[in-house]
Amino acid sequence: MEDINLHFTGDFNAVEKANNLLSALIDNNIQSKVNNLNIDPRTILWKRVIDMNDRALRDITIGLGGTANGVPREDGFNITPASEVMAILCMATSFDNLKERLGSIFIGFTFDKKPVFARDLKAENAMAILLKDAIKPNLVQTLEENPAIIHGGPFANIAQGTNTVLATKMGLSLSNYVVTEAGFGADLGAEKFLNIKSAFAGLNPKCVVLVATIRALRHHGGAQKEEYNTPSLERVEEGFKNLEKHIGNIRKFNIEPVVAINSFISDSEEEVNLVIEKCQNLGVYAVLSEGWAKGGEGTKELAKAVVDVVENKATQFKPLYDWKSPVKEKIETIAREIYGADGVIYDKKAELNLRRIDRLGFSDFAICMAKTQKSFSDDEKLIGRPTGFKVTVREIEIAAGAQFIIPILGKMMRMPGLPARPASEGMTIDNNGVISGLS
Amino acid sequence: MEDINLHFTGDFNAVEKANNLLSALIDNNIQSKVNNLNIDPRTILWKRVIDMNDRALRDITIGLGGTANGVPREDGFNITPASEVMAILCMATSFDNLKERLGSIFIGFTFDKKPVFARDLKAENAMAILLKDAIKPNLVQTLEENPAIIHGGPFANIAQGTNTVLATKMGLSLSNYVVTEAGFGADLGAEKFLNIKSAFAGLNPKCVVLVATIRALRHHGGAQKEEYNTPSLERVEEGFKNLEKHIGNIRKFNIEPVVAINSFISDSEEEVNLVIEKCQNLGVYAVLSEGWAKGGEGTKELAKAVVDVVENKATQFKPLYDWKSPVKEKIETIAREIYGADGVIYDKKAELNLRRIDRLGFSDFAICMAKTQKSFSDDEKLIGRPTGFKVTVREIEIAAGAQFIIPILGKMMRMPGLPARPASEGMTIDNNGVISGLS
Amino acid sequence: MEDINLHFTGDFNAVEKANNLLSALIDNNIQSKVNNLNIDPRTILWKRVIDMNDRALRDITIGLGGTANGVPREDGFNITPASEVMAILCMATSFDNLKERLGSIFIGFTFDKKPVFARDLKAENAMAILLKDAIKPNLVQTLEENPAIIHGGPFANIAQGTNTVLATKMGLSLSNYVVTEAGFGADLGAEKFLNIKSAFAGLNPKCVVLVATIRALRHHGGAQKEEYNTPSLERVEEGFKNLEKHIGNIRKFNIEPVVAINSFISDSEEEVNLVIEKCQNLGVYAVLSEGWAKGGEGTKELAKAVVDVVENKATQFKPLYDWKSPVKEKIETIAREIYGADGVIYDKKAELNLRRIDRLGFSDFAICMAKTQKSFSDDEKLIGRPTGFKVTVREIEIAAGAQFIIPILGKMMRMPGLPARPASEGMTIDNNGVISGLS
Amino acid sequence: MEDINLHFTGDFNAVEKANNLLSALIDNNIQSKVNNLNIDPRTILWKRVIDMNDRALRDITIGLGGTANGVPREDGFNITPASEVMAILCMATSFDNLKERLGSIFIGFTFDKKPVFARDLKAENAMAILLKDAIKPNLVQTLEENPAIIHGGPFANIAQGTNTVLATKMGLSLSNYVVTEAGFGADLGAEKFLNIKSAFAGLNPKCVVLVATIRALRHHGGAQKEEYNTPSLERVEEGFKNLEKHIGNIRKFNIEPVVAINSFISDSEEEVNLVIEKCQNLGVYAVLSEGWAKGGEGTKELAKAVVDVVENKATQFKPLYDWKSPVKEKIETIAREIYGADGVIYDKKAELNLRRIDRLGFSDFAICMAKTQKSFSDDEKLIGRPTGFKVTVREIEIAAGAQFIIPILGKMMRMPGLPARPASEGMTIDNNGVISGLS
Repeated sequence: MEDINLHFTGDFNAVEKANNLLSALIDNNIQSKVNNLNIDPRTILWKRVIDMNDRALRDITIGLGGTANGVPREDGFNITPASEVMAILCMATSFDNLKERLGSIFIGFTFDKKPVFARDLKAENAMAILLKDAIKPNLVQTLEENPAIIHGGPFANIAQGTNTVLATKMGLSLSNYVVTEAGFGADLGAEKFLNIKSAFAGLNPKCVVLVATIRALRHHGGAQKEEYNTPSLERVEEGFKNLEKHIGNIRKFNIEPVVAINSFISDSEEEVNLVIEKCQNLGVYAVLSEGWAKGGEGTKELAKAVVDVVENKATQFKPLYDWKSPVKEKIETIAREIYGADGVIYDKKAELNLRRIDRLGFSDFAICMAKTQKSFSDDEKLIGRPTGFKVTVREIEIAAGAQFIIPILGKMMRMPGLPARPASEGMTIDNNGVISGLS
Repeated sequence: MEDINLHFTGDFNAVEKANNLLSALIDNNIQSKVNNLNIDPRTILWKRVIDMNDRALRDITIGLGGTANGVPREDGFNITPASEVMAILCMATSFDNLKERLGSIFIGFTFDKKPVFARDLKAENAMAILLKDAIKPNLVQTLEENPAIIHGGPFANIAQGTNTVLATKMGLSLSNYVVTEAGFGADLGAEKFLNIKSAFAGLNPKCVVLVATIRALRHHGGAQKEEYNTPSLERVEEGFKNLEKHIGNIRKFNIEPVVAINSFISDSEEEVNLVIEKCQNLGVYAVLSEGWAKGGEGTKELAKAVVDVVENKATQFKPLYDWKSPVKEKIETIAREIYGADGVIYDKKAELNLRRIDRLGFSDFAICMAKTQKSFSDDEKLIGRPTGFKVTVREIEIAAGAQFIIPILGKMMRMPGLPARPASEGMTIDNNGVISGLS
Repeated sequence: MEDINLHFTGDFNAVEKANNLLSALIDNNIQSKVNNLNIDPRTILWKRVIDMNDRALRDITIGLGGTANGVPREDGFNITPASEVMAILCMATSFDNLKERLGSIFIGFTFDKKPVFARDLKAENAMAILLKDAIKPNLVQTLEENPAIIHGGPFANIAQGTNTVLATKMGLSLSNYVVTEAGFGADLGAEKFLNIKSAFAGLNPKCVVLVATIRALRHHGGAQKEEYNTPSLERVEEGFKNLEKHIGNIRKFNIEPVVAINSFISDSEEEVNLVIEKCQNLGVYAVLSEGWAKGGEGTKELAKAVVDVVENKATQFKPLYDWKSPVKEKIETIAREIYGADGVIYDKKAELNLRRIDRLGFSDFAICMAKTQKSFSDDEKLIGRPTGFKVTVREIEIAAGAQFIIPILGKMMRMPGLPARPASEGMTIDNNGVISGLS
Repeated sequence: MEDINLHFTGDFNAVEKANNLLSALIDNNIQSKVNNLNIDPRTILWKRVIDMNDRALRDITIGLGGTANGVPREDGFNITPASEVMAILCMATSFDNLKERLGSIFIGFTFDKKPVFARDLKAENAMAILLKDAIKPNLVQTLEENPAIIHGGPFANIAQGTNTVLATKMGLSLSNYVVTEAGFGADLGAEKFLNIKSAFAGLNPKCVVLVATIRALRHHGGAQKEEYNTPSLERVEEGFKNLEKHIGNIRKFNIEPVVAINSFISDSEEEVNLVIEKCQNLGVYAVLSEGWAKGGEGTKELAKAVVDVVENKATQFKPLYDWKSPVKEKIETIAREIYGADGVIYDKKAELNLRRIDRLGFSDFAICMAKTQKSFSDDEKLIGRPTGFKVTVREIEIAAGAQFIIPILGKMMRMPGLPARPASEGMTIDNNGVISGLS
């Protein structure tokens, strides 16, 4: 676990380096008179990334200190999982396609208002070289020695939230069943897995496992933090509305869900049974999943339910929107259908961003929402199944190589900060390399 | 070669992450009210690093954009090999010592003018966790399947220029002869290997191989760039003064040098013989080294010469200065004895830095010069063996964990820039992963 | 004319100095340990001002360069007429009241989130000293030697657009009729003169003179720039809708307007007659005003019309909104009633600003809109009498001493920029001080 | 007194506006595509000014916030008396010459490294228009109704320290005797009055009055702040060395000084007599001056001494250096002859500045030192008559329109800061405009 959370195979680092190489090439081109592309430094949308929660780097001024130090301009760092290079790695269908996409990254404009792409800086090959190993899926094994492929790490709240197309296709070529994680709430991970990755890669998912916990249902039912571990049929009943909305959402894609109740020792039997019963009423399997405690044995029932759905109830997946629809229509579809919002408000800046997307001919891209994972809405305080709300698009980023339009909702940031008491304070490592305090 | 130049085993990345974790913890502490150390953001000397030639990051303003984004302050990035974490990795004698040194990193001051160290932020364990694999030497093998240890990468112009103490000690425990590279001109790499690493780790080097090329001697003899490959006895004769100074320098450490003439196809026999002869006059072996073309076979003669020196001529190494001497005396010793300077000029800022070092009780640290590798002086245009010059100390950095005082000479920068035409432009990689254009 | 446009009596300069003294005191307090108020530099809303069109000062970072140079923070300059000190000068009812208002200026928050006012810095007396002459109305005379009072200079697009309360009251104490200018379109100048100044100072205006030009009516009727001087009944007919809206607006205040047609040599008789006739149909006097060409003689007819309205048709002025109404209701009233908008959109930032206003107890202040003078809407391209539009509030400034809430609409900036070809290029002054090229 | 210290006739404001108009024109030219001069924003040496002690404006970044807000660059404000426009106003010999000098202001370089002047922006006429009244000397009268001309206000520590050439010439045309103030220590004010103003304008001063106080002599004799008002023959005797150096300095210009002892009530007769006696030993008149207490009557003796010197002892003034000498020679002459320094140290930046001055052909300009007024040296703690010190030139500014080279010595800043407890805190003004607390 630690080794995966630490540097692992270096893929994150490779993504970070490829991203930042492009940044250095941009600033170098502005500085240099050789092959100068006449880039207007104030229009550069391409940001540096760092794999660190570092809020102080969100909004910075670079190139200060005189003529030897580049040209002053405003910039900012995103966290590495939010890098378009990560998105490209996840969407690439081949090494050639990787280079093609890297070259298509949109950077900004010249002083003559012409768009500039990474390929104008001849950056795609050097970036691809840095990614030559990262593009290869990583095969690991579980504690029970089952094979697992770990490849790509885009968080679902700020990015597309699921692993690479290559890894999934490799899995499909090797096995009858491939299970893929798409985290951070099905309104984020599943929505993007289906509308972006599956739609693009021609995947035909047969079943969606919705992972629920009694704890989380209590929370969505109104329990305070200190009550999370206290059984309460009432809270679970109220919180079930959240799960019910997710169930309905999956069915909008013409897929049958299975609910996995991720077992905790604080769960009461009554609560678990309540969830199972309410799911049955909706015609959905709900199964207690005890993988954490019992390994494969503990998820047998879940597996059977999934097999049953795939074998006997599978329907033909269809995405919720057509990539070719107008941008606002696509955003509105997600907001209304998946989030249950009454509509979408666009801040001035977002409206200007939309006009630019249109002018650049990027309207056919997929929508990759950046939204809090704590609520269906863009306000993390609205728990359960909120209604009567609108979501606000603050600004819209472009990832032309990944072919994403990224609306930033509410207060979402693509660079997180550390907590007031950072986890690092509690970590120790002894002379034998034994680590404690990683949570 | 490519794999080593690319991400290799991830050590550089681990160093970078550990360095930048400390930065994030500093800015987080300033932002947060929990355990706030009252750090004055304007006094922070600890910089972020990135493994990229990126001049636009030398001088930046961070923490802009409002209260959620930290506190505004001036900052800058160094290149990763210049990180104090790299220096600490290279100087650490054990894992425990690594943590101890990480904790001793000096960060800046509180508003009450008290010094702040990494340990005040409880950062050393989390940093050490990130370095838990990087601290282990990497064993690779040459094309002829000889073992080689690659561990640590501090450039000798901006850092201490040689690999880790642990790697060298591991080598010494495994073999009779250990050969260590210390690059970037013997006035930098060798001086630091001897005065810093050997003095600190109690090493007793028996021989120094000075690697010379006919090309470089022509350059130091006044050849223009387009003449570098044109034989010229006159140039080589004139350029030999540079080599002669290096030979003399090594002897000041009470060590006998051997000169390896790194063979190029553009060398003329007369030039090579001239160098051999002039070395002989100084009582020094000079041997043609043809390792690039012929592998181990091509360096047999060189090896014999080294063995002869070690077996028959070895003397007792002594460092050029005592770490306990006053700071200015140590700097002056290197400048006069190794560079051949007439003296040292301190800019106002450097004088202020010196006063701070004294106040903080850091005067006993080793001197780790940052100086151009292109000249004995701090002006890269003064080739050959310049005399009648002074060097200017612009400012002085502190690396309290590594126990280094780092005077920055002339125009030296600890963050380089890309060339006007970056190498990346000429690189390609095909679909089979074959790379060309790496120079 | 030149002397008034140049430094005049120094009032603008005094306002600027008083404003910037407060800024210097704020930054000095942050820097200094004596009487330190614990101000959070990131929360400071008080901006510096300069009487210059200088867009590069809109958004700046100050306090850079180390501990001697203050504390780094983001700041910006507004143009002097937008200074709250100018607003306070215009609203002050006495010297005592001036000091009181200066002391009530809201600056920002402490780190403990407590509001900070100018009086906390003991700034109000020193600021008042700088304004001791500026507070006195300036008496000048026209070319025909009539007395005129010039006092205060807040532009109506970015500020309250009319002269000081003291000057108007002085005029009223000296004469039966006082004519006051309130420029930049009656949707701005008149609206603010009535809702802010008259409502606050208990003035009872008897008549409003709407100044129209045939040129402007052609423009609002769709004429292109090169057609502005070309007579066109059709354009004037169409453009009259703009004037008709202004006429209706004035009547909403329970005041009768008189239209003054400011005569230009390019006007055709037919056009002038058309306007007169269309006004008559609305029951409004429209009179050709030839003051520019003929002086007092040329405005006799206009004066007679005004006297007739005042003597025979005057009604009891009432403001359009009650200062005590909720903020959004006040803004909406102006937008719907005066601009003819369908509603008001608030950007995220404006919503946050509103919450702050509420929390600080500033909701009872007057609304002082910042909006383009080129359209009833916030989009300068919507000429004539636009309908079916909404206005967007981008952000909301607070002027607690002036008791203003200042919504910034559309792209309005409180610091203008110079034109691409600045007027200064065409100015000359000879050795006798004769100036040409002032336009 | 207050009215002069406050806005007076607006000259300072006019200087400030003219200075900042040029700044706005520069940034506007960088922003605009019309008549774009291709100015490299990183090379601009022209700074904005503000008449405020405002350290937070010393080092700023402007032009942030996107393409509408200009181009990001580093800038800074000086205090208005340090403006080159003030220097030009003081040096101008006619209105024509004023314009000529304004046009000659050096701004920075184009990207092609060509120098840019104010005239390239066609700025000189608009700037001159702003100065059209400021160029006229201001006639005021003393409490005894004697005429006095107040014109120009460049501080002698950071600027040339004396009033305008026009004012002095006007005085000379109206009266037999003209007395001019040149403040801040005779090593600053007098040195510049003589070497810059008199040398340039062909003045032939006949006598220099050195104003001394017993208090200051006690200070230079080692008295602590709390002892300043305590008589001490010993301190005065020791402090006299400072005055003796000033006396010797004046004689180096071939002028006889008269010492005016500015009477304070804390002076003891013995101290006054000691100074008179020691001056007599040097052949110099020393006279008690009681102007503050007794007006003209109190300075009669002083006037007689001056007349005696002028009538009977006057010699032919000669400047200490020739403007045509090399820059370093001129600086060294002042440092050695006037300050008593052993030499001059140039920081790296100053050396680079010197090279630029040479390249631009500005070497023939006068030297206008920026140095603390608290010591003959550049270290304000070295009181009395220090010896055995060197002065450090940190950087060198250029004022090409004024024809000044401005070396910045030690820690001198051309923008001061407010004290920890700003004077404004103690000021009050009542409703009758009576001010107290101005010190």
